[in-house]
Amino acid sequence: MDDDVGVFAFDSDTAATRTADSAYEVHVSDGWNIGTNPNGGYVLSLLTSALAQEAGDGHPDLLTITAHYLRPTTPGEPAQVHVEQVRQGRRHTHLQATLAQGTERVRALAAYGNLAEADGPTLIRTEPPEIPDPDDCAARHGGSDPVSAVSSFMHRFDTRLSPETGWLRGERTGVPRVVGWTRFADGREPDVASLPLFADALPPAVFELGPAGWVPTIELTVHVRGRPAPGWLLARFETRALVDGYLEEDGEIWDSEGRLVAQSRQLALLLPAG
Amino acid sequence: MDDDVGVFAFDSDTAATRTADSAYEVHVSDGWNIGTNPNGGYVLSLLTSALAQEAGDGHPDLLTITAHYLRPTTPGEPAQVHVEQVRQGRRHTHLQATLAQGTERVRALAAYGNLAEADGPTLIRTEPPEIPDPDDCAARHGGSDPVSAVSSFMHRFDTRLSPETGWLRGERTGVPRVVGWTRFADGREPDVASLPLFADALPPAVFELGPAGWVPTIELTVHVRGRPAPGWLLARFETRALVDGYLEEDGEIWDSEGRLVAQSRQLALLLPAG
Repeated sequence: MDDDVGVFAFDSDTAATRTADSAYEVHVSDGWNIGTNPNGGYVLSLLTSALAQEAGDGHPDLLTITAHYLRPTTPGEPAQVHVEQVRQGRRHTHLQATLAQGTERVRALAAYGNLAEADGPTLIRTEPPEIPDPDDCAARHGGSDPVSAVSSFMHRFDTRLSPETGWLRGERTGVPRVVGWTRFADGREPDVASLPLFADALPPAVFELGPAGWVPTIELTVHVRGRPAPGWLLARFETRALVDGYLEEDGEIWDSEGRLVAQSRQLALLLPAG
Repeated sequence: MDDDVGVFAFDSDTAATRTADSAYEVHVSDGWNIGTNPNGGYVLSLLTSALAQEAGDGHPDLLTITAHYLRPTTPGEPAQVHVEQVRQGRRHTHLQATLAQGTERVRALAAYGNLAEADGPTLIRTEPPEIPDPDDCAARHGGSDPVSAVSSFMHRFDTRLSPETGWLRGERTGVPRVVGWTRFADGREPDVASLPLFADALPPAVFELGPAGWVPTIELTVHVRGRPAPGWLLARFETRALVDGYLEEDGEIWDSEGRLVAQSRQLALLLPAG
């Protein structure tokens, strides 16, 4: 290695190598699995790794990305990412990307811009959740339940969930919300590129409703609202409407300086346990 | 006309005629303009009109759509919509669509399914806004301000905004929220197909902050959560984070029976008044 890329797991496990015009080779690591499937935020990061190379120097920041999850991605195997530059404007570059392993697994639409050049008004009406300091929260490095036992994903993070989290102590609050501090376990600092991952990195909010089987994401959209400062991220995810098994989950992510850096929303299905 | 299609403005102005495999011709009406540009929700409906024809009989309901607005659409001219079926699964069909008038104007990703076959649990934690009955709200059929005077869009709707709406009486509440009843002016009932339009049909929530110029949408995502009953829709849109001119606007739409039928979120730019 002749530079820092590859030192941290996130960077080495999302590296995208250009093989032709707009075509990239990536390797789907088995280090980011929930159960036996790669986490959706990790897979999305494989796409953004290629997308960022096509967005161009004037538009370094991911502003919004929407992914449709078509089929599970296969860990431990290579994949091909194809990027199409849809429109390059003065303020924004819109791009599309697909990830394929034989068949197409994920398709995404994204817009890049330059957050440092944005100069309009600011008004924030939402506040970071009030929870104890990380050391007074419940660490979640892995877990002894059947899914966690085979999930490599949790080991990539240092996550401290609010003491109010019911299911961590075998209870269910009935309120589908999850709040916690999170950061990379290997010390990599958060940045714009890692925010889509963090937007899908906490356990589903609906865990507070009872035993859940699988909560597959149909569509995930992440809006980047700022470049995160180094340190802990503080995240809150909640579900306001579960209708006939379909649910939305909204997220807000705040950086260590208390600034809102991302908002996310996903549409997912709640499938019954076992 | 040998059926009801075309009787109502929304249906005739969004008709998509198949011209080849996956290719459709639409006509961008000048009857849905904000100022001199077609409204984003109307343009999105031109795409869904074609998308619905490709989703297939087993998946009649739009579940989620994300549109990236690349360039303004030109009213009064034809446009071509191209649909790609990305993945047809048992539960969902994922599709992509583009709308072009010479250059590409809008690109969208969508998933269709069957809301009547969904059979999981239901838990709704959000409630419809409490506002007076439509007859006790402020009608907004058009307006005398410069933009409204040349906007054909308002005439397509019967919209009654909450009496708390500040800018309607020349004040600004400082809270970027807009709440109101809405329905088609010509009596067409709401349905799944028209929900993306309604998700972009109320004035921007940021009007409560002061004179706004243009609030161009970068990305709009609509989740359909139910098939609406006939009658009024009740909608609430609000902005929680305006950061350096970039804002998200979240919406919830309820039907006349008090059921949540859609959630929306858009990322937009607040440009200063001319």
